[in-house]
Amino acid sequence: MTTRHPRLLHDLPTSLAEEQIDELLRRPNLRIERIVSTGQSSAETSWYDQSEHEWVIVLSGRATLRYEDDDAEVELGPGDAAFIPAHTKHQVAWTTPNEPTVWLAFFWSEP
Amino acid sequence: MTTRHPRLLHDLPTSLAEEQIDELLRRPNLRIERIVSTGQSSAETSWYDQSEHEWVIVLSGRATLRYEDDDAEVELGPGDAAFIPAHTKHQVAWTTPNEPTVWLAFFWSEP
Repeated sequence: MTTRHPRLLHDLPTSLAEEQIDELLRRPNLRIERIVSTGQSSAETSWYDQSEHEWVIVLSGRATLRYEDDDAEVELGPGDAAFIPAHTKHQVAWTTPNEPTVWLAFFWSEP
Repeated sequence: MTTRHPRLLHDLPTSLAEEQIDELLRRPNLRIERIVSTGQSSAETSWYDQSEHEWVIVLSGRATLRYEDDDAEVELGPGDAAFIPAHTKHQVAWTTPNEPTVWLAFFWSEP
């Protein structure tokens, strides 16, 4: 799927045992991924703790993010994004089981 | 619009004399913008020639990209993206006049 013109809402899986991650671009200091969830969420005790910064947007479907340092959950629908600075512990609390949730995620490191 | 959780498909302008650019995030080596076009396109003789790399995706609406070194135009609808390496001369040949075209664009420089 690493092409000059990827089509992120085409060829979507409808049912997956695990999230599907497609790398769209990899550059020296940046990585772009399409992530497709079909109802998956993080275990309640499991937190992402990433060394890279992340900026992520939901292209279709719905999901809920949770941060370790904030009780309020953030619901994301199409066009809704989140900036997750490096080492901000977070989890995906929920993704809709009724349709694939398609995420576009950018990961980068800073000088 | 620089927030932790921007909502890119909310509060869209419906008619604009010029494209509207909202900066969503600015970091040392990366910039994220929402661009809303309402029928605008580049002049035929005018080419973008950028010093940064760009990765852009259409979130809603439709548009056509043209590259100086390629006769084939690339039509982009929702979920369709383009990686435009630095100094790749390109132009927006067309955006649909019937609805706003919402772009999400990432610009970055490399070490």
